[in-house]
Amino acid sequence: MKLYSYFRSSAAYRVRIALNLKGLGYDYEAVHLLRDGGQQLKPEYRALNPDGIVPTLVDGDDVLTQSLAIIEYLDETHPEPPLLPRGPSDRAFVRSVAMQVACEIHPLDNLRVLKYLKHQVKVPDETKDAWYRYWVETGFASLEKRLAGDKRVGKLTFGDTPTIADLCIVPQVFNARRFGIDLAPYPTIERIADNANQLDAFERAAPAQQPDAE
Amino acid sequence: MKLYSYFRSSAAYRVRIALNLKGLGYDYEAVHLLRDGGQQLKPEYRALNPDGIVPTLVDGDDVLTQSLAIIEYLDETHPEPPLLPRGPSDRAFVRSVAMQVACEIHPLDNLRVLKYLKHQVKVPDETKDAWYRYWVETGFASLEKRLAGDKRVGKLTFGDTPTIADLCIVPQVFNARRFGIDLAPYPTIERIADNANQLDAFERAAPAQQPDAE
Repeated sequence: MKLYSYFRSSAAYRVRIALNLKGLGYDYEAVHLLRDGGQQLKPEYRALNPDGIVPTLVDGDDVLTQSLAIIEYLDETHPEPPLLPRGPSDRAFVRSVAMQVACEIHPLDNLRVLKYLKHQVKVPDETKDAWYRYWVETGFASLEKRLAGDKRVGKLTFGDTPTIADLCIVPQVFNARRFGIDLAPYPTIERIADNANQLDAFERAAPAQQPDAE
Repeated sequence: MKLYSYFRSSAAYRVRIALNLKGLGYDYEAVHLLRDGGQQLKPEYRALNPDGIVPTLVDGDDVLTQSLAIIEYLDETHPEPPLLPRGPSDRAFVRSVAMQVACEIHPLDNLRVLKYLKHQVKVPDETKDAWYRYWVETGFASLEKRLAGDKRVGKLTFGDTPTIADLCIVPQVFNARRFGIDLAPYPTIERIADNANQLDAFERAAPAQQPDAE
């Protein structure tokens, strides 16, 4: 398998954790999101991924896009260890936590949106920073409320076993810290991320451990 | 089951289609996103859904949030007719199309983001409209490119059978038309939406058919 990735991309980070948890080796193909005006926008890469975003996973003849679709694919093709619980209700809980990050927070705060705000809307940097903070803090506040009150939460989102929820939380927490967000109001989220980061599969997926880390 | 919905919400619309395809009856609980400063922000609703967004599906003791997590839950608890193909590669294709809409387009163009742009960033209406257009047109352009070149596409995204991809495309096309987006550059997307809308389950889920339609 070959993974097109950028060390700091949250979505690529999720897939790297999944590959590590499944014990799957892969070739790492770096796509630099800033260099050359964004290597993800070059025709060669867009032939694989028309959205011009990372990650893309190539597995034989299959070209797979969208991190959560890739992770569900890996879970179906390599079932052990499972990244989702067994019962439909618990699966819905885990998936909904993953999607609270992947659909409500990350899409508003990723690089291309911040670039559009700066260059097209032409907002000053403090407005852009406030935008970033608002969506992370709004999203984390409601996620914290859900997780703090849910008995299924253990060391990680669902008991002590890594699931796709943790795969989304860890990169978002990394990203929030990088932008200087105070995580004290979200102790459950922070605890889950810190516990997950103790695990080898998460540690090896961290941005600083990637071949294209700067 | 009880569905908390707003007639025009794309995410609620997806779940209504899924419930109809599965032949499941449900109580409709309207949550007006504009009235009273937004009924979704009231404490009673946020006790169910801390994000303060629709939909929420209550099934017995389970309170389910995030439309795609709800739809996967319905597909697991009521397998017929399936909303995903059988093979992992085809499932990844369908899920990734759904997520291209649900993670790359819709989160940037929903009501709360447009409200934040207007009231917090204080952009003029034409900047807000340009923002809406940009993310729909950017997302549709790359989705069109993928779909137009994929042999799996039939009358609908995956052959002629409705999948979660169609459940995401139809509401996004409805929304784009409402905002006056020209769909001529995206003939495959438009054709899929028009074909899906011929089906009873899609037609009954349309905003105009809901009890809270205006």
